Amino acid sequence: MKEIIEALNWRYATKRFDPSRKLSNEQIEILKESLRLTPSSYGLQPLYFIVVEDESLREQLMEASYGQRQVLEASHLFVFCSHTNISHDHIDEHANNTAQIRKIEKEATNKYADFLKREVNSMDQNEQKTWNEKQCYIALGQFLTVCAIQQIDAIPMEGFDSAKYDDILNLNERGIHATLVCPVGYRHPEDRHQFNAKVRKIQDMIFETI
Amino acid sequence: MKEIIEALNWRYATKRFDPSRKLSNEQIEILKESLRLTPSSYGLQPLYFIVVEDESLREQLMEASYGQRQVLEASHLFVFCSHTNISHDHIDEHANNTAQIRKIEKEATNKYADFLKREVNSMDQNEQKTWNEKQCYIALGQFLTVCAIQQIDAIPMEGFDSAKYDDILNLNERGIHATLVCPVGYRHPEDRHQFNAKVRKIQDMIFETI
Repeated sequence: MKEIIEALNWRYATKRFDPSRKLSNEQIEILKESLRLTPSSYGLQPLYFIVVEDESLREQLMEASYGQRQVLEASHLFVFCSHTNISHDHIDEHANNTAQIRKIEKEATNKYADFLKREVNSMDQNEQKTWNEKQCYIALGQFLTVCAIQQIDAIPMEGFDSAKYDDILNLNERGIHATLVCPVGYRHPEDRHQFNAKVRKIQDMIFETI
Repeated sequence: MKEIIEALNWRYATKRFDPSRKLSNEQIEILKESLRLTPSSYGLQPLYFIVVEDESLREQLMEASYGQRQVLEASHLFVFCSHTNISHDHIDEHANNTAQIRKIEKEATNKYADFLKREVNSMDQNEQKTWNEKQCYIALGQFLTVCAIQQIDAIPMEGFDSAKYDDILNLNERGIHATLVCPVGYRHPEDRHQFNAKVRKIQDMIFETI
């Protein structure tokens, strides 16, 4: 089977990182660029990413993660945030960005912006929030795949107190909230989880071809 | 910049496929295996994937996708489904699977199953549904990245009538529902969208390092 499948089999949710090993600037740059390029619905990118290096902040965030040490011990901590809603300003900014990058008239993108505003207006606040969070999960999927290919260890986490994260990182005032957390770095040679066989359903249980 | 970033820049949401070009069995196998290996919360894999080849079915699904021709013209159509809830049976099956694959006593996994049942019981039906859907978006992120690396064209779609999909594919009776759709294959040389510059926010707009 191909290299990519080998990489996906190599990865596992790393519970214990080697605190002495740090990712290089180039590695972090690849991870950031892969997040920036993540597809999102209508290309709206209702996302924000915080890379936490600061140790005292990491200690606070570990407390807000039920004491899970990977938050502190991993090389870098990525906090995946999503926007609490989608404002008309956000859509206008996207339309302007599109006009600028594609060197087209603002008129053309204005029509598209009007369409997007009608789409978004058809959702209530909570639906918008959930929709944005789902886009965040696409970013996580892309991120974890890129990590595996680069032989970077990672552990995706939903298990943290998001309200506390929002508070510690001052996210509320910016209209965003912590949705997912992903420490990255190098597995500790003694992390016993790396030796566990991967548990997945066999293809016949989750696929149908018609 | 690295190969992987080149691949992510190469990909785009392919609106028009070349209907004469089909993916090989080996390519489809890699895509399926990458979906099977997708991480999910607690490894529960509340997902199901339908690969639609049948042309008359694809025509019906195109109707249920507001007539978007990529549903018919792409080489293969992947329908990403998620479970409507998480049953105790689902959790027991996961625990049994874990015991079997890791060759450990069922006793040990039973305790984990009890913990998972408490977790899931703390969510109402709608929260379980949304949680499962989010796992589906991780699978999409991984899938699109693997497609890009393999130079397979794809278009992720939320824009389809999911109730009609559920009906056409008889999903309700199986406790699953269509969550995302992704036609895959080869871009048509005349698909004008491939020539558009990619629109993404610059890193400074969506990243903070602290």
